[in-house]
Amino acid sequence: MITGLSHVSIVVPDLAAALRKLEATYGLSAGAIKVNEEQGVRMTYVDLGNAKIELMEPSRPDSPVAKFLERNPKGGIHHFCLGVDDVAQTTQELGAAGVQVLGEGRVQLNVHGERIAFVHPRDFLGALVELEENNQDNSHG
Amino acid sequence: MITGLSHVSIVVPDLAAALRKLEATYGLSAGAIKVNEEQGVRMTYVDLGNAKIELMEPSRPDSPVAKFLERNPKGGIHHFCLGVDDVAQTTQELGAAGVQVLGEGRVQLNVHGERIAFVHPRDFLGALVELEENNQDNSHG
Repeated sequence: MITGLSHVSIVVPDLAAALRKLEATYGLSAGAIKVNEEQGVRMTYVDLGNAKIELMEPSRPDSPVAKFLERNPKGGIHHFCLGVDDVAQTTQELGAAGVQVLGEGRVQLNVHGERIAFVHPRDFLGALVELEENNQDNSHG
Repeated sequence: MITGLSHVSIVVPDLAAALRKLEATYGLSAGAIKVNEEQGVRMTYVDLGNAKIELMEPSRPDSPVAKFLERNPKGGIHHFCLGVDDVAQTTQELGAAGVQVLGEGRVQLNVHGERIAFVHPRDFLGALVELEENNQDNSHG
């Protein structure tokens, strides 16, 4: 079951420059920068209270988000993330309904250790959608 | 001042088909469909509790979102929207900081009569960002 909107994710070519821009121009500050080796991204979050903005840059040349930057050199919106009560159950049900869950439907972990999965854009109106398991707080991560 | 994340907006080629898909596959239902003649879109919202998903289709051939569909025929994420306490003040401050507010910085109205403005993607990390004035409820519209 979908429980809320967790975050909007932006891929940027230069994470440090992006954080300076958001702070100086919009008064928005981010948390600690972490690296997700599995997904090949260096990332952080701007907490807006009810939800977050996720910021990512490639942590290695073969990062999946490096391809996104080839198409969008200045950065752009990469995906958004819905909170769900149970990622494994949700992906199983979606798979049974014909939805393609990326990575062969395998549940992954984000930098906070939360269970996540991604739905193929063709199965969500052209939008890449992350599902994140977060029972207690929709606005977290 | 930015007060929260209001919504993520998806442009689709067929709004009725999109709503059927979200309902049947994800159990998500939308509110009433409205037309914003000024922006040339037929639109509705899926309320996720803490924030919303906005769905739009062109209401006329020269709609600005028709160009988006030429580049993304199956639809995709078009922009996201931040809640602000005062659109006029925020756009004035951003303009003074060198940010391009679309439509010559003029405040517009959305289908709920709320005051909105759009920031050029080059001034928000490549993302088209809407600002929406909504003092009492960050998750509304």
